Parts: sequence; C-alpha cells; structure tokens
Amino acid sequence: MVADHGSYGAKDYHDPPAAPLFDAAELGKWSFYRALIAEFVATLLFLYITVLTVIGYKSQSEGDACGGVGILGIAWAFGGHINPAVTFGLLVARKVSLVRAVMYMVAQCLGAICGVGLVKTFQSSYYNKYGGGANGLADGYTSSVGLGAEIIGTFVLVYTVFSATDPKRNARDSHVPVLAPLPIGFAVFMVHLATIPITGTGINPARSLGAAVIYNNDKAWNDLWIFWVGPFIGAAIAAFYHQFILRAGAAKALLGSFKSTSHV
Amino acid sequence: MVADHGSYGAKDYHDPPAAPLFDAAELGKWSFYRALIAEFVATLLFLYITVLTVIGYKSQSEGDACGGVGILGIAWAFGGHINPAVTFGLLVARKVSLVRAVMYMVAQCLGAICGVGLVKTFQSSYYNKYGGGANGLADGYTSSVGLGAEIIGTFVLVYTVFSATDPKRNARDSHVPVLAPLPIGFAVFMVHLATIPITGTGINPARSLGAAVIYNNDKAWNDLWIFWVGPFIGAAIAAFYHQFILRAGAAKALLGSFKSTSHV
Amino acid sequence: MVADHGSYGAKDYHDPPAAPLFDAAELGKWSFYRALIAEFVATLLFLYITVLTVIGYKSQSEGDACGGVGILGIAWAFGGHINPAVTFGLLVARKVSLVRAVMYMVAQCLGAICGVGLVKTFQSSYYNKYGGGANGLADGYTSSVGLGAEIIGTFVLVYTVFSATDPKRNARDSHVPVLAPLPIGFAVFMVHLATIPITGTGINPARSLGAAVIYNNDKAWNDLWIFWVGPFIGAAIAAFYHQFILRAGAAKALLGSFKSTSHV
Amino acid sequence: MVADHGSYGAKDYHDPPAAPLFDAAELGKWSFYRALIAEFVATLLFLYITVLTVIGYKSQSEGDACGGVGILGIAWAFGGHINPAVTFGLLVARKVSLVRAVMYMVAQCLGAICGVGLVKTFQSSYYNKYGGGANGLADGYTSSVGLGAEIIGTFVLVYTVFSATDPKRNARDSHVPVLAPLPIGFAVFMVHLATIPITGTGINPARSLGAAVIYNNDKAWNDLWIFWVGPFIGAAIAAFYHQFILRAGAAKALLGSFKSTSHV
Repeated sequence: MVADHGSYGAKDYHDPPAAPLFDAAELGKWSFYRALIAEFVATLLFLYITVLTVIGYKSQSEGDACGGVGILGIAWAFGGHINPAVTFGLLVARKVSLVRAVMYMVAQCLGAICGVGLVKTFQSSYYNKYGGGANGLADGYTSSVGLGAEIIGTFVLVYTVFSATDPKRNARDSHVPVLAPLPIGFAVFMVHLATIPITGTGINPARSLGAAVIYNNDKAWNDLWIFWVGPFIGAAIAAFYHQFILRAGAAKALLGSFKSTSHV
Repeated sequence: MVADHGSYGAKDYHDPPAAPLFDAAELGKWSFYRALIAEFVATLLFLYITVLTVIGYKSQSEGDACGGVGILGIAWAFGGHINPAVTFGLLVARKVSLVRAVMYMVAQCLGAICGVGLVKTFQSSYYNKYGGGANGLADGYTSSVGLGAEIIGTFVLVYTVFSATDPKRNARDSHVPVLAPLPIGFAVFMVHLATIPITGTGINPARSLGAAVIYNNDKAWNDLWIFWVGPFIGAAIAAFYHQFILRAGAAKALLGSFKSTSHV
Repeated sequence: MVADHGSYGAKDYHDPPAAPLFDAAELGKWSFYRALIAEFVATLLFLYITVLTVIGYKSQSEGDACGGVGILGIAWAFGGHINPAVTFGLLVARKVSLVRAVMYMVAQCLGAICGVGLVKTFQSSYYNKYGGGANGLADGYTSSVGLGAEIIGTFVLVYTVFSATDPKRNARDSHVPVLAPLPIGFAVFMVHLATIPITGTGINPARSLGAAVIYNNDKAWNDLWIFWVGPFIGAAIAAFYHQFILRAGAAKALLGSFKSTSHV
Repeated sequence: MVADHGSYGAKDYHDPPAAPLFDAAELGKWSFYRALIAEFVATLLFLYITVLTVIGYKSQSEGDACGGVGILGIAWAFGGHINPAVTFGLLVARKVSLVRAVMYMVAQCLGAICGVGLVKTFQSSYYNKYGGGANGLADGYTSSVGLGAEIIGTFVLVYTVFSATDPKRNARDSHVPVLAPLPIGFAVFMVHLATIPITGTGINPARSLGAAVIYNNDKAWNDLWIFWVGPFIGAAIAAFYHQFILRAGAAKALLGSFKSTSHV
C-alpha cells in the first residue's frame, strides 16, 4: 500500500470524539462528584507528602530530598489529574469538558491548600522557618527566565502525559521500533533537577497556590502569576504539539470538532 | 447509552464475592499453611534486609540510606502481605477471611521478630548502638502528630495497594485517560521521606513490633501503640475510601454481603 | 521436533524486510517531516534539561546530579532516536533508510545546538563558568582509553535498545526463563556512572556537538572526534553482535537483503 | 469446586518437563554456542561497568556510587544468567542441564576476568589503589557472619529470579490480590545496601573470582571461598523453597522427574 499510515487517508484506529465544552448531563451523575472528591483527596495527599518532605528534610539540613517532589507528583497522578495544568492540557485537546475542567481545578486548589495546611499543623516549629514549600524566583534570574523555565517544564510534563496515555501509540505510523515509554515520573523528576535552582520548580499551579495561601508571604504572592501563566502556556503548547505535529490525523478530526461544536 | 457506567445500573464487570469472615474449610488446606510460611519468610527477610541496612549505614555515618526501607517494603510484598495493616485493610474490604487475616498477622509478627534477631546477631557491635531500627516519636512532636502521620502514611500505602491490585481498573467509568500506576514502592518511599523525621516511619505494625521486641527499650515499648493504632485506622479509612468513594458499585455489593453474612 | 528453534530451519517468526538504502517515496510524505520535527524537538528538550541540570547543580556545588543525564537520555528516547549513534545502529541493521538516517542526524544536531543555546540563555552567569556541559578527556587518560570507553559505552546503549525493541524476543530459542528487560535508562545510567570520570560520558554525538558549538572552547573542539568516532564504532559493533550472534536467523536474512539491494 | 487449586489435584497449568542432566544433542547446536558467547559478553560488560564505577568513584572520593552495582547486576541479566549462583539455582530446579550449567559458569568466569582486566587497563593509575573491586570480609566480622550474609543475600536474589520468571504465577492458588513484582534489581540493590558493610556484597561467584584474579591480592584469595560456598548454598535453598513450599504441585513433578532420570 502506498498510502502513508497515520495520514489523512486510510487508518487502522479511530480517536474518541472530542468532549463537548458544556455537558449538563454530567452534573447529574454521582460519578462526577466522586471524581471531584478523588481530585481533592489526591491533591491534598500529594501536597501533604511533598511539602512535608521538603520541610522535614530542610530541618535535618539535607537539601532538597533528592527531588522526590517530582517523583511523587506522578505516583499520585493515577488517582487523578492533581494538576490544573494537566487538566488544562486535556481541555485544550478536547478530552474533558469545560465544566469538568473548571471543577477539577477548584477541587485541586482546595486539596492543595488543605494538604499544605496539614503540613503546617504537623511541622509547626519548622514550617515558616524553612520557606513553607512556596515557589519563587531565585536571586539573579529575571521573570522571563522563570516564565520560560515553567513553560518548558510544563510542556515536558504534559507532553509526557499525552504520550503515555495515547491509546493508539502502537498503531501509529513509524519506521522505527517504538521504545517503551518510561514512567512520567522520570520526566518530572528531571524537570525538577533542572529548574529547582531557578524557580523551585512549579509546573503545578495548585501546588504553588496552596503553598502561597498557607505560607502567606509577599514574595510567594508576587511571583505566583509566573506559576499560573507559565504552566498554562506550556500545557497548551504541549497539547497542540501532540495533536498537530505528532498525530496529524487527530489534528484534522480535532479541527472538525471545534467547527461543529462552535455551530451549536 | 445514558446510564452512568460504574453506577448501580448496568456495568461491564463483576466483583468477586466478599470473603466469608470464618471459613473452616481453609484450615484443612495445605495451601493455607504454605501461605503462612510464605508470610513468615517474606517478613523475616524484609526485616533482616531493611534493619541491616539502617544499622550498617549508620555505622558508616551515612544517614538513612536514602529511605531504602520503603522501597524494599514493596519489593518483598509480592511474596506476601508482610504488613498487618495491609492484611487488615484487605479484611475490612472483605478480601480475606478473619481467620486467615489473624493467622497472617501472627506469621508476620513472628517473621519480623526473627528478622530483626538475625540483624542483632550479624551486627552485634552496632545493633544497640544505632537504635536497633526501632520506631519512636522524635523530640518535639506530640503523640497526636505521630498518630496522624502514621494514619495518613498507612492510608497512602493501603490505598495504593488497593488501586494497584484493583482487577477492574480498566473497566471503571472515566472520562479521562487512565495513567499507568507507578510501583507501590514509590508511594511508600515518599511516605518514608516525609515522615522519617517525625516517627522514623512505621506504617507496618509487624516491623515496629519486631524491632521493639529485639531492641527491648522503654521508649520503643511506650511508643509502640502509635504504630499499631495509627496504621490500623489508616488502613480502615483507605479500604472504605476505595470501596465507597472510588468504586461506588463495589460499595453496594459490599454492603449487601455484610448483611447476608451477618445473617449466617 | 528436533530442529533448533531460532536456527536456519523452521521458525515461528518473521523479521520485517530490511529497509531500502534509498527510498525516494518517503521524501514526499508529511509523516517524514513530522518525524524530523519530533527528532528536533526531542533532542532540543533533552539537551535543555540535561545540560541545565548539570550547570544548575554545579552552581550549587552538588557534583554531577547523580548521573541524571543518563536517565533522561532515555526518558526522551521514546519521542525519537535523539542520538545519531542509535540512528546509525538502526541503519547498520537496515531498519531505517540512509536518507532518513542522515536527515534524522541533522535534525538531532540542530536540536542539540538549540537546546544548549537555551541553557546558555537561561543560565548566563553560570554557563561558561561551569564548563558548558561539554565532553572532554579528563586529565591522565589517553585518547585510546577515551575512545575505548565511548565504544563500549555506546555498545551497551545500542545493544540494549536492540534487545528492548526486538519484536521477537519471546519467540527466540531459549532454555532459560526470559527475565523482563529493565528500562534502557538503567543501562545508560550505569554507563554514565562508569565513564563520567574518564570522558564526562558522551555516547551521543549530537549532545557532544551541541555543547561544543555553544561552549566553543578549544579543548571541546579538539576532543570532539572521540565522541563521534567512538559512538559510531560502538553502535556498529552492537548492531552486528545483535543480528549475527544473538539472532543468527536474522543475520542470514540480513545478508540476503544486502545482496539483493546491491543489485538494484 | 472443593479441590484446592494448586494442590496435587486438578490444576489449570502444566510445568515444562525437567531438563535432563546430560543432553548430548545440545552440544551439536549452534544456539548452544551462541548462548555461551552471550554469557561471556554479558558478564564481561557487567564486570567492566560495575568495577569501573566502583574504581572511578572511589577516585573522586564519592563512596560506593549509590550501590549501583546491584542495579546493573540485573540490568544485564536479561542478556544471560551472568551469575553462576543463578545458573546453579536453575540447575537445582532442573531448568537447565548439568552440561549447560557448567559451560555457562565457565563462560561467566572468563567474562568476569576479562571485564575486570579491561577496567585495570582503563584505570591503570587507580585500579590497585582502590582495592580492585574485590570482595572481602570487613574488619570485625567473622567468617560465619560473612557466609550467612552471602547465603541470605543470594537466597533473596535467586528467589526473586524464580518468582519473576515463574510462568504460572497468575494461575497459582491465591486468596489475595497478586501484587505486581518489582524489578529484580530492587531486591539486589537492597541486598547490596544491607551487606556492603559486611563483605562488599558478592552474591555472584564470577564477579568475586574475576576481581580476585585481576587484583591478585592475598586477602581476596583467602576470602574467595565465602563468595562461592555462600551463594551456592543460598541459591540451592531458594530453588528448594520456591519449588517445594511456594509451588507444591511443581515439587511433586520435580521429585518424579529426579526419580525417572536417575533410572537412566
């Protein structure tokens, strides 16, 4: 066959239809609220453990606890998105509805605030002393470098999530053997190693917000915009890159669905 | 289809029936005793290696050996439960009978005692000097913080065990791509990083008992209740959370089975 | 059956036909250019993160960041070859065409240069100070030791890629249980641990070129040949070892294909 | 059904027949010699990388390079047994013939010697200075403690190999959810963390022999017996434990096969 597998012609797989932007029916389902609870609990535990690790180890003067924050970020991810940037990327790719995405982000932010609050309760003597787990620009770096680091870092995370969860990876056109995808955790871990010196590594707006709310420090609040704007831009680029460049066929379908839903 | 997959209506999977509380037949099976031997051996080796690591590395002044205890906890777990809290969680979820759960816990405790005893034999000059691998509240933390840390830590472990071993994960209702579960070990590893500064991290009552028996120190005995009460509460919450919130359909079936078996 | 499975006789699998050396048709496909973009982006991100990690951590005087470079090398590999030595190995084994291999290498080198350039932009105060992530022979080692280390290191990488992606592993003749292959990343990680003291570990000519171009230092340019000649020799040996020794049947088919295509 | 799955009665799986002790036919097969080459090459590379890591990092005064030796031990294992103790365990369980086992061990020992020889060539100024990667009893431990540590450590390794490669794991009788087996590497890694302070951790007789031959030091030769006797005892116990306790059905078949082949 001359046709290019994966191009607009014949192909051996079908993408699921794009999620509608508004889906009133899902508000009436118990499974929708269970998902919100799961987002809340998972983000709470995620923040509890990661910030507790950072504070606990700083109190023993052992540095950054081996970047474990990054590893755990994903260990919990299978219990939910736990990250508004990931949820936003899935919204851009039309994999969740707008309503669901917004409600997930709210649950994630509340979970993050409660999780960091728990750490402050447990580690009352060390929490403020060791910076409260908040993100902020390190001395000597401009806002643009911080923003750039957050954009690229989140791009890496969301691109990896898309690749790892692409249900049709094996059916894609490829002239080379497909290597097994490594756990998302490694990508996130490496992003942390790379950008901790610059911003403390956000790439999760709920995590940055939760720490800012509980730590309640001027610098944390002033820098917070970097940790919302950067991750959302990075997630959007990753969603477009994955859908348009890596999966051109999917891109066409996506365009069509945007058109048809905008008619409604 | 309008019905919500995973709700009480039509669903594409069936849970196994709940385990009976008492099952006299299993006492007559050779496989029951082989399982007890396996629990004993696995817990013995688990304690031997983890406590040996802690003692050996303290003797070389290298700190906590990178929380390796946590990693191994699971490396061995596929040879058994090796943890009374995990066994208790599976009992609450009606996946093992009461008789089997109690016997498993006895085998785990005996294995833990023998494992730590072996370490004391091999590292006679260092064992007592370096704290015997026993759990205990660190200075400056109240019992409630220690108990809270053990509850949440065990919740994380048991919840992860349930998620990783849920045979119907792929059939569950979900509007989002399912991420691959990371090894349980990472969750346990992170719990250790987070709570070593507070309690030394128990989340395994057999491990805490084994070290207390062999080290035989007042503080280890006095704090031991925290490492039994905390993990059992955390395991019970995790079992309920998984069955009632994450798997509502399973919850209904579970309730039914409790009713029907309580008639017997 | 007496016949030796995996020998020249009856066998239960078939290798795909060898890729042609020149395949004009693929130049007209959109998928070919998408693959080049993917190689470029993946190599750019790979270099961005790894070199940023090396520079960032040196600026905090924390040594080599635990050889993380190696882990990431593979974390990204599933987004492409990202390494001219791997691409060369696949060319030698006739799994990609010559045209595609050359274009991939060009994209990889451009991506590497841009990735390191980004690091220099972000870490302007530290980039030159901490050696720019460039490879070079350490003091006290001869060129032949450096070349040998690169040959063996790349052999390990490419051999592991071949083993991990061999679609017929399970059908091969074997009297022993097949162990699950560990992530390629561990092999690469270990190669780094082993050879960082000697050459800084190249085993990726695009990575060495990118750092040399941006760092633009005499020593980096003078030693660069080691990081192209070594990896290409190692990759070729690995391809031959895998095809001729480990998969004798494949070897025969390969020979036949070389003969038949050389007629064209 | 009342019958106990996994007991002597009805079962839903069949073990392969036990390997004959002597199998003249395999000496005539090209695949037999390819397997020997693979054992040689894999063990050579294994020793090259691990000992190079140990020597290289000691020369930078960074301790034990994170116990990486253990991880790699298995990273390479999928290219062969690379360990006479593993081969011996498989012989005891009647999974390889005696002839093949002996020839594998010879290839492993030759590979180990060549691998360490390569390290001495590459690191000529540091090899002898940093102990040559040889195993030996640390000061303050008796031979029995060293032997015990090697027996238990090898038991863990070989038991894990058996569990991970048991083709019928999923069909086994079990009242509890089967947890996914972690990579063998973690078990080996932990064994190293636990026993490096006592013996430097052997659990691979070829590795200990290779280092002793090239380092050629009195202490290395005097302690060498510990690193052959201990691992062989541990491997034999693991083989028996796995076949008789964990898989009682397999045990019966095994006994039968020993009887029938001893008639021949």
